[in-house]
Amino acid sequence: MIVLRYQNAMEPHIGAAGFAKADFDRALRAFRPGFRAILRDRRKLPFLELPYQESLFSRIEAYARQVRGRFRNLVHIGIGGSALGAQAMAGALLHRFHNERSKPRLYCLDNVDPEETAALFEHVDPRETLFHIVTKSGETTETVAGFLVALDRLRRADLDPSEHVVITTDRKKGFLKRAAAALRVRTFEIPEKVGGRFSALTPVGLLPAAMAGLPIQEIAAGAILADEQCARKDPERNPAFLFALLAWFMDARRGRRIHVIMPYARALRDVADWFRQLWAESLGKRWSTSGQETNTGPTPVLALGATDQHSQIQLYMEGPQDKLIVFLVPRQFRSDVTIPSSMSDPSADFLHGKCFSELLSAEQQGTQAALTAAGRPNLTIEIPQISPRTVGALLLFFEMAAVFAGRLYDINPFDQPGVEAGKKAAFALLGREGHADLRADLERRLAVDEQYTIR
Amino acid sequence: MIVLRYQNAMEPHIGAAGFAKADFDRALRAFRPGFRAILRDRRKLPFLELPYQESLFSRIEAYARQVRGRFRNLVHIGIGGSALGAQAMAGALLHRFHNERSKPRLYCLDNVDPEETAALFEHVDPRETLFHIVTKSGETTETVAGFLVALDRLRRADLDPSEHVVITTDRKKGFLKRAAAALRVRTFEIPEKVGGRFSALTPVGLLPAAMAGLPIQEIAAGAILADEQCARKDPERNPAFLFALLAWFMDARRGRRIHVIMPYARALRDVADWFRQLWAESLGKRWSTSGQETNTGPTPVLALGATDQHSQIQLYMEGPQDKLIVFLVPRQFRSDVTIPSSMSDPSADFLHGKCFSELLSAEQQGTQAALTAAGRPNLTIEIPQISPRTVGALLLFFEMAAVFAGRLYDINPFDQPGVEAGKKAAFALLGREGHADLRADLERRLAVDEQYTIR
Repeated sequence: MIVLRYQNAMEPHIGAAGFAKADFDRALRAFRPGFRAILRDRRKLPFLELPYQESLFSRIEAYARQVRGRFRNLVHIGIGGSALGAQAMAGALLHRFHNERSKPRLYCLDNVDPEETAALFEHVDPRETLFHIVTKSGETTETVAGFLVALDRLRRADLDPSEHVVITTDRKKGFLKRAAAALRVRTFEIPEKVGGRFSALTPVGLLPAAMAGLPIQEIAAGAILADEQCARKDPERNPAFLFALLAWFMDARRGRRIHVIMPYARALRDVADWFRQLWAESLGKRWSTSGQETNTGPTPVLALGATDQHSQIQLYMEGPQDKLIVFLVPRQFRSDVTIPSSMSDPSADFLHGKCFSELLSAEQQGTQAALTAAGRPNLTIEIPQISPRTVGALLLFFEMAAVFAGRLYDINPFDQPGVEAGKKAAFALLGREGHADLRADLERRLAVDEQYTIR
Repeated sequence: MIVLRYQNAMEPHIGAAGFAKADFDRALRAFRPGFRAILRDRRKLPFLELPYQESLFSRIEAYARQVRGRFRNLVHIGIGGSALGAQAMAGALLHRFHNERSKPRLYCLDNVDPEETAALFEHVDPRETLFHIVTKSGETTETVAGFLVALDRLRRADLDPSEHVVITTDRKKGFLKRAAAALRVRTFEIPEKVGGRFSALTPVGLLPAAMAGLPIQEIAAGAILADEQCARKDPERNPAFLFALLAWFMDARRGRRIHVIMPYARALRDVADWFRQLWAESLGKRWSTSGQETNTGPTPVLALGATDQHSQIQLYMEGPQDKLIVFLVPRQFRSDVTIPSSMSDPSADFLHGKCFSELLSAEQQGTQAALTAAGRPNLTIEIPQISPRTVGALLLFFEMAAVFAGRLYDINPFDQPGVEAGKKAAFALLGREGHADLRADLERRLAVDEQYTIR
């Protein structure tokens, strides 16, 4: 399923920037107890149960069948982990111009941008729209705001929310749960112990996928295949552990704190964007597990091949030695275009009869070879082709890699305490009860110092 | 026009991570000769002439008026600097769902992804399509490949290329120039001395903008306003120089090599993506101007507010002290939504009657205050609102900042020698004449080492 090629991160292939075999073996020995502990406690990782919940998939599919034909639009309202998984699956598996061709059109309101929100509600007719409201806590400000607008637009059009809203949230608590009960709206659950960035394979991501007609059982089947690979007890054969080890090594031992994920397939761009959250929020931490201040974590960067060769590769080739490049490559494509000999010219003739897949592959390989020749480490994650199975596999593979990386970085990969301060400050600025004490400090801090302002 | 607030990069506000006033004054003195030399030689910067070419704008507008109503689709084929400027203007100034509502629909083929290319040519009917082919050299492989397919699809449909193709390329040389002559296709020019990433205000970006009905004279007028700001002779009042100085300082003196550009406006996302190329390709360099090996250059990262607060802020708050955050903020929005009191609940009532603009602003200010309190430097670039003028201003402002930064980093901001190696390798793999000698070395380098492969 997942193939990991890491020769260009090893000293024999890449030189001094790479992992020497002796150090590699030493690291494997050192981390073996941690590696084993994670595998032993696999049942404590709630997201690993998700691909096996067949009865849930049937319920989601039954719901999707029941409502799909009735709506022209599905508006998914959620942010962060409540949006990125759905976007990753839709981006990878729907037609590139889906919304201009097929129903239901999919929209994701994952921001509180006033212009975007106004444009969306101007664009969709509530009579033809199903709103999927997603928040783990049931209280996420951005999502609640979008929900309140959707509810208002439905009522103004004399529509019954129970016919136009479906809510995915916690089983018991939160505003959205209370709202669902009051409005008699259909709900789906996010399991209590599954954090937002690990929730793609819950109704959070699977409900919109099913609504769009994607085979969610196949997505889960792919995750199961990756789960089997990532449960292998030999660390050297376990792709998630090895990926985590190499990423950690490049950061902690080689100062390569920037991890560039570079899919060579437009359809995988949103998978890479989902990975950005997983990697940043899981590993970017102030405190180690033993309470030492560590301020650690790699910075994930998304680059798209071949497009970003004309934007970022100059920097990756010649800039500081602070990056690990991770290529994400399908071996085959679902469709292709042959370059016709519609015009002859010395600078074009070499292209005639070639396929775009050959062209893209040559660009990926050319870039990989050039980076390697310049002593710049890179990894390749390969999938057979983009499909429901391989997308499910990638999600689970990266999730397990984040768990292993959490151990290597010696931090808790499941929390996100650093987002609280900004959230509280925003509450205080909005005048939310219980945050008044913050306000004075904030106003002082936000006061404009004209000495340092250029107009 | 452009307002730069930099108090949170200064020691009195941010503490030790910031620029102390004495060091700041010393840096201003040290760089004054370089600053003055750039201003003195402004006429040598060809991109600065672009906003003043009124007769060109008239020609572009006349062409756009003539063809606009005739086509349902405009397919822009170009990559890197030949695509990002057009995308920035369209993304900022067209309706968020333009292609689902208005004609001409705009598509940008900026990759050689076989699936995306197949999907696009399946999606657009050549009879209803104008193809805008853009390449400075006239020979860019990706663009030539797309052009050959477009030409073939037109001929198969018995359509005259001269009616369905417009080419923007060099005035004299290159395959596309020869093709235009052979096909009697209308052409526009990219001035010889204007590099791709500085070419947004040439027909490269302005032709699609005009085709979409955008007022390109206004875009240019905004660039002129920014040009006036960025020509100020007092470095402390010059926003482009100050921005460059602070960015350079955070990198070179504080180890903050990651420059996060974080627009709080969905419509500015593509402007930020355009900035990614400008910053990475201009400053990421191996050699200094005096020929020392320097391997320098900040890594630009794009984050979108408020969305990425739920993805990247955990890392920015708690991770390594290796980032400078640059907020990009419109003071007013073009439209807004009031949050209705459609449902009462303790966790929602504080939102009732608030506008999304207040919500987004509170989130931006909350994030800024939290980062500042955590000793993490940040800058704010403010514009009155998103408009043709302010978008034009932002483009020119950042271009001038890249020129000043080039001086501070002591590199040539106008070249991109590091992209050649990968390009040549791709040519060799595709069997292009004159690259055979590379092939053996490449095949050795790309040979799979099964020892470092996990399946």
